[in-house]
Amino acid sequence: MSSAPKLYIGLLHYPVYNKNMNVITTSITNLDIHDIARTACTYDIARYYVIHPLDTQRRLIGDILNYWQEGYGASYNPDRKEAFQRVKLIDTLDSAMQEIEKVEGQVPKLITTDARIYPNTISYKEMRKLLDTGDPYLLLFGTGWGIEKETMLKSDYILEPIYGAGPYNHLSVRSAVAIILDRLKGTPWWE
Amino acid sequence: MSSAPKLYIGLLHYPVYNKNMNVITTSITNLDIHDIARTACTYDIARYYVIHPLDTQRRLIGDILNYWQEGYGASYNPDRKEAFQRVKLIDTLDSAMQEIEKVEGQVPKLITTDARIYPNTISYKEMRKLLDTGDPYLLLFGTGWGIEKETMLKSDYILEPIYGAGPYNHLSVRSAVAIILDRLKGTPWWE
Repeated sequence: MSSAPKLYIGLLHYPVYNKNMNVITTSITNLDIHDIARTACTYDIARYYVIHPLDTQRRLIGDILNYWQEGYGASYNPDRKEAFQRVKLIDTLDSAMQEIEKVEGQVPKLITTDARIYPNTISYKEMRKLLDTGDPYLLLFGTGWGIEKETMLKSDYILEPIYGAGPYNHLSVRSAVAIILDRLKGTPWWE
Repeated sequence: MSSAPKLYIGLLHYPVYNKNMNVITTSITNLDIHDIARTACTYDIARYYVIHPLDTQRRLIGDILNYWQEGYGASYNPDRKEAFQRVKLIDTLDSAMQEIEKVEGQVPKLITTDARIYPNTISYKEMRKLLDTGDPYLLLFGTGWGIEKETMLKSDYILEPIYGAGPYNHLSVRSAVAIILDRLKGTPWWE
């Protein structure tokens, strides 16, 4: 097992689908920042990229982050400050990939998630093993009604859908990130 | 394995602690309703009790639920309507316990969660087995800084803390519910 965390995560706001399968840019949701930052910190994720093309949206969220990192929030809730240190606002998926390549010295493998099965669908058990090799990975989550097809086609691996106890499969992205990181990086509680 | 779902969950807004360990009543958070209802539906939870003593708070949330169950939201997003059918607003933990007793014909066992270890702490592996017996259980989550001590002492079982990959342990309740239900009711993906 490698010592340094090499798993990065990203939350994509463009290009994603809306309900009618048109490609759109979604707004950043405040609790997506908080909840996913806390989950990322719990599972020792190297960095959590919030990917949004609009400078105005990134500035707005930058102010919120700043409040918790440097402002009153940092002293009121130091745990939140710690979680937010892993958050980085960035404009595109490509920029995130390039930044990881600079840090790690190699292009990260891209992992996405989808409710459907593809030829490169991988199980959580297999992915958990791959993460132990120490190679860098970027695990990408979509907002809206899912990641646009062209981006999906760039993924090296697609994680299998989360099966619960029935046919219903509409978790929030916040819940999906929590479950997936627990499966990939949590303690092996089932042993 | 029993056929009917006998696992109930509850989100407690009183009595819980604030940061300074005073007993308080927290406000209901809108996304706690949405996210946890969707997770409960995914894992086929019998019912999700939102426990709040104040009639005014329950009425406010009742309006939100009604929008998604009967109003415009129900036709805009039928998946949300389905998830919200499992949500029930109730005044106290005791009322929830009594209602489950009426439905199931026996008093449910109470399970809580905590970041500390107690004499009746149980592992996820053991709890998963107990759920297969078909007995009714109510799994209770706290808001604020955790469930008040007297209520904790009523629990039959306390689930062990969620261990991530480091010392940080400050998940949102929405993320904690997602991870715990996946461990207790998710498909055995590790096999």
